Amino acid sequence: MTAIPYFALIASALALLLAYYFAKTVMKADEGTDLMKEIGQAIREGAMAFLRREYQWVSVFVVAMFVLLLVVPIDGRPSASFAYLMGAFLSSVAGFIGMRIATAANTRTANAAREGAAKALPLAFKGGAVMGFTVAGLALLGISFNYLLWVTWLGVDSAFQVVAAFGLGASSIALFARIGGGIFTKAADVGGDLVGKVEAGIPEDDPRNPATIADAVGDNVGDVAGMGADLFESYAGSIVAPIVLVSLLMSGVFIKGDELQVFGDYESLLMYPILIGALGMIASIVGALLTRGKEGQSLSKQLHTGQYVAMGLTVVFAIAGTQWLFGGASKADGSDIVQTPIYLAFTIIIGLLGGWAIGFISEYFTSEHYKPVKGIAAQSETGAATVVIEGIAKGKLSTLPSVVVVVTMIGLSYWFGGAAFGQTGDVIGLYGVSLSAIGMLAVTGVIVAVDAYGPIADNAGGIAEMAQLPSEVREVTDSLDALGNTTAAVAKGFAVGSAAVTALALFKSFSLTAGSDVNLDINDTAVTIGLFLGAMTPFIFAAMTMSAVGRAAQAMIVEVRRQFAEIPGLREGRPGVKPDSRRCVDISTQAALREMLLPGGLAIVLPLAIGFIDVNALGGFLAGAVVTGFLMAIYMANSGGAWDNAKKYIEAGAHGGKGTDAHSAAVVGDTIGDPFKDTSGPAMNILIKVMTIVSLVFVPAFI
Amino acid sequence: MTAIPYFALIASALALLLAYYFAKTVMKADEGTDLMKEIGQAIREGAMAFLRREYQWVSVFVVAMFVLLLVVPIDGRPSASFAYLMGAFLSSVAGFIGMRIATAANTRTANAAREGAAKALPLAFKGGAVMGFTVAGLALLGISFNYLLWVTWLGVDSAFQVVAAFGLGASSIALFARIGGGIFTKAADVGGDLVGKVEAGIPEDDPRNPATIADAVGDNVGDVAGMGADLFESYAGSIVAPIVLVSLLMSGVFIKGDELQVFGDYESLLMYPILIGALGMIASIVGALLTRGKEGQSLSKQLHTGQYVAMGLTVVFAIAGTQWLFGGASKADGSDIVQTPIYLAFTIIIGLLGGWAIGFISEYFTSEHYKPVKGIAAQSETGAATVVIEGIAKGKLSTLPSVVVVVTMIGLSYWFGGAAFGQTGDVIGLYGVSLSAIGMLAVTGVIVAVDAYGPIADNAGGIAEMAQLPSEVREVTDSLDALGNTTAAVAKGFAVGSAAVTALALFKSFSLTAGSDVNLDINDTAVTIGLFLGAMTPFIFAAMTMSAVGRAAQAMIVEVRRQFAEIPGLREGRPGVKPDSRRCVDISTQAALREMLLPGGLAIVLPLAIGFIDVNALGGFLAGAVVTGFLMAIYMANSGGAWDNAKKYIEAGAHGGKGTDAHSAAVVGDTIGDPFKDTSGPAMNILIKVMTIVSLVFVPAFI
Repeated sequence: MTAIPYFALIASALALLLAYYFAKTVMKADEGTDLMKEIGQAIREGAMAFLRREYQWVSVFVVAMFVLLLVVPIDGRPSASFAYLMGAFLSSVAGFIGMRIATAANTRTANAAREGAAKALPLAFKGGAVMGFTVAGLALLGISFNYLLWVTWLGVDSAFQVVAAFGLGASSIALFARIGGGIFTKAADVGGDLVGKVEAGIPEDDPRNPATIADAVGDNVGDVAGMGADLFESYAGSIVAPIVLVSLLMSGVFIKGDELQVFGDYESLLMYPILIGALGMIASIVGALLTRGKEGQSLSKQLHTGQYVAMGLTVVFAIAGTQWLFGGASKADGSDIVQTPIYLAFTIIIGLLGGWAIGFISEYFTSEHYKPVKGIAAQSETGAATVVIEGIAKGKLSTLPSVVVVVTMIGLSYWFGGAAFGQTGDVIGLYGVSLSAIGMLAVTGVIVAVDAYGPIADNAGGIAEMAQLPSEVREVTDSLDALGNTTAAVAKGFAVGSAAVTALALFKSFSLTAGSDVNLDINDTAVTIGLFLGAMTPFIFAAMTMSAVGRAAQAMIVEVRRQFAEIPGLREGRPGVKPDSRRCVDISTQAALREMLLPGGLAIVLPLAIGFIDVNALGGFLAGAVVTGFLMAIYMANSGGAWDNAKKYIEAGAHGGKGTDAHSAAVVGDTIGDPFKDTSGPAMNILIKVMTIVSLVFVPAFI
Repeated sequence: MTAIPYFALIASALALLLAYYFAKTVMKADEGTDLMKEIGQAIREGAMAFLRREYQWVSVFVVAMFVLLLVVPIDGRPSASFAYLMGAFLSSVAGFIGMRIATAANTRTANAAREGAAKALPLAFKGGAVMGFTVAGLALLGISFNYLLWVTWLGVDSAFQVVAAFGLGASSIALFARIGGGIFTKAADVGGDLVGKVEAGIPEDDPRNPATIADAVGDNVGDVAGMGADLFESYAGSIVAPIVLVSLLMSGVFIKGDELQVFGDYESLLMYPILIGALGMIASIVGALLTRGKEGQSLSKQLHTGQYVAMGLTVVFAIAGTQWLFGGASKADGSDIVQTPIYLAFTIIIGLLGGWAIGFISEYFTSEHYKPVKGIAAQSETGAATVVIEGIAKGKLSTLPSVVVVVTMIGLSYWFGGAAFGQTGDVIGLYGVSLSAIGMLAVTGVIVAVDAYGPIADNAGGIAEMAQLPSEVREVTDSLDALGNTTAAVAKGFAVGSAAVTALALFKSFSLTAGSDVNLDINDTAVTIGLFLGAMTPFIFAAMTMSAVGRAAQAMIVEVRRQFAEIPGLREGRPGVKPDSRRCVDISTQAALREMLLPGGLAIVLPLAIGFIDVNALGGFLAGAVVTGFLMAIYMANSGGAWDNAKKYIEAGAHGGKGTDAHSAAVVGDTIGDPFKDTSGPAMNILIKVMTIVSLVFVPAFI
């Protein structure tokens, strides 16, 4: 059993090796024509420049937090400060590597598309898989190394606070990556579209539009780096939460007095989350290796096979691993520690199924194959207003099945968690809930891989267009891109579902750590006030991020208009005349960095401020924020996705197709949906996680 | 002190007398030309027909609830069933009378406008005041009569449950009036506008548009009857809540064991809310009598003077009344019951100021005189999408100051409530919170009067247009209408603010009634699940009501298109050719009635279903719903109002004025805002109140 953290280290190393192997494969592929190389370089330089500048800004913040963690009287100092730094560092490294390869895979995918989809798809997938396995590998590596370092080797007291601090480090990076990336990508997209498509009348991805490169950079910055940092954080957080719960049991801090005596040996419970993480990693590696391009097979099948194999293997491994770990383990009195090990495996499987279900719900509400998107498209006949009303209504409606899935997951995993130990105690039930989050994230490697595939395919299409490749190539990249939209919906489902369950598990850890010093009865007036403030926070966050996109897009509009006016021959496409793309990238970069500070800062400062004033209020605040944040994330992501695909559905010929009034109406919906689905919605995920983990780490200082 | 309920009866009678006097004044005024009479009659018939049919449908529901209350083992049977019937009956009567007079005042206001604003304004105000004082008078009458009947005369056990059942009766009517009215009014408005303004190119309120009469009917059905029933419910609920709290103290059900011995005499605490209600009523009557038309004075001043006088007098009366009631009262041991009576008066004043502040915030975010609306209007330069994004962002941002006001109110009134008795106990603090709700609603008479003034002035404008009165008349009615928009914002602030605080007070009563049988710790898994489900409910409610408006508007569009196509000469305005307005009214009526059933039914069934499964989950459910419902109400009302006024701001000449692309973009925002501000947003108020009061009444059956 003590070998488990070492096993996790090995699994992480394998993941990183796989990422290295995929990276080599990608880099070996041909970049194509000189023009493609040039465009690819512009995108890569823009993306990496943004990342560097973002890290510069964030490093100031990270240093401040590092010092704060040294100064404030929390447990596990100074180890926690260093664990924090490690979390922030590893997440940054994952982002850097993932972006570097993603921005190399885009041109190569475009080039491979000249030989057909079967050549191009594996390249785009491998490019995404570098991000996926770097994220998952470094996260698991960090946690198992931290565990070994502080718990096994140094025997640090309050080691769980140190592990939590690692999670906080990852959160800090994710917070700014998500918000900054989200603002960057939509400023370029909305600003570019409004002038390019609407005013200048030139199509999307046209090389004449000065914002086209910035738009392509934005896809990488938002959907690759932002999503990667988000899932790094979720993955780390999901493993941190049960470790903290069990540590609290060990240290004698718990809710019910009758729970402690149940266990003679906690260590297996501490190891279990790490074991599942390692097993899921192996399963993901196998799945990724099975994703190959086959002629004649549907693209969707090629891409999904690996995912389903990974999920299936995780189920088998989880059942076997649970049996192995708990099957023979017994307490001092000879009775079994875990009476029914299979029940613990069930919590893992419930999480996996729950993640899949939320993803499917997302797909149902955002794919043009189902009723909601068709209904929104039908409303385009009576204008933009009815498209928007219907899109908002359907997005809000999508919270119903999503919440039903989440509460079912919570209820079932709570029950199985308790029943595994033959009791119904609170802490043990919560352990079950936190395990379901791990189950959902066990296959993070392939999930992120498939998700990062999307922007690579999207970029490849843009490059094909800009490099004036033949239309057959564009058709291939379009088919890859269309598939990417579906996979993105599923990945978004995982991201938001895991954020909710992880945040919940961290919240429970927070209140257990606070123990009897906190009263979370809703009737307590401080808790009520906290609930109001917490539920309000996602609304304010949505307002701030949407306004930020609006302001940044306006700056982009002014610049694009200026270039069209001042660069002679640009609009007409005179040969040799090029827009100043670099300046547009710069505008998006500056706007994103400036605009991310206030919401990002608030996400850290608000829980700290409320916590130091009143811990009960902080409890209510977190509960309100987690619940409302989850709802807003689902609503905004699904409304936005539905508008996007309603527009595409019309462009494919429904309701008169392109150029009709119906199409214009759908374009309005799509533009509104941009910040919904790519800025504000995803920002909710990290908002609720970062606020709970900040509270968890600082709770000893509050009380 | 025992005279207080009788004093309240007298105050109610005075309010009803005032309503009668105002009604006579309105009816005596001249209706104008034959065409005006004809139009007025069509509107009146449509409105009254809707109300009759709505009551028929709702009466089935009321009878079912009556039987349920007889069958289910709650306290105070069968008295509660009859109190329930009385609440439903009195609310219906208030709606009926108010609508009848409002639909008489509209033509008379239009006619008086021919002689100038100073003649027309008092008529519109008096028409609205009939609704205001019928609502407030009947509500206070019902409560004081119930109190006398069950508590004083019959000495019924658990009399507080009977009083709560009266509130539930009022809720049942308000629920369907709000939802049905909201759907009716926007189906007609959106549907009529989309065909009339957009397709047929004819202006608003044009008699050629078959939906114009239905639109005018909608104003009455939504803004007069819906708002009236809503505030009837809030007003009754606000007085019910503290009575229930004190009754619980008396019956020995309370949270902390050290609170009971503090009081020797509870009766003054029971009487206090009724006393404040009666004093506020007198103040409102005085204020209403001071609202007169004066030549040369600004319209706004004429309308607001009465409101401010009523508020000022309420403050003075509250201080004096509190001193009178508690100044000399002492406990058995000779010590004072209330150590610092002025603190109780403060809770009232805090509520009054809080209501005013939320109203002012509404005005700030929705008036074209301030930055938010100007900012939204500026976004019209880049199209509809940016108008919508900015409107959503600003509406969400408006939750920040509104929540700050509410939590400050809760915190302060909680503190003053406890401090008045020289302690910090939970129940007594909550008593303070519930008093602040009464403070907010003490001047309901004038608030509703000023609010119902709006649709009357709006209707008068429509009638002037349809009856082809000279343009000077239309200018007068426009000035009255513009003023109505501002007053509506303030009234909406009161409605939503009072809904939140009332729901909160009722929620606290619910959990006190459940007592130790309910555990509302957020960490309890059932409570967590309840929180998710509760917070989700306003999202689903918004989705259902918005979709309902969409469907109903589509039906209207089809009908209006059909009439333009099939009635020769209608579009061209050939003399003698009239649209079939009755059929449009019918379509709105049927759609509204059909569409209100599901959301209305859910609001009752959901808390019952959850309560019978798990009371802890119900507690979480209510808390989640109240908090999120409040946020959604604020956001949707303010976004909607802001879009409306951004459009008007542009129509007044900004950004190029009417007919420009900017104007078209603003019209899209306005159309989206219609269901936001007049259907979904207001429906949240009643949703959160009805769910808490259902839970309160049925809690003995749950446990």
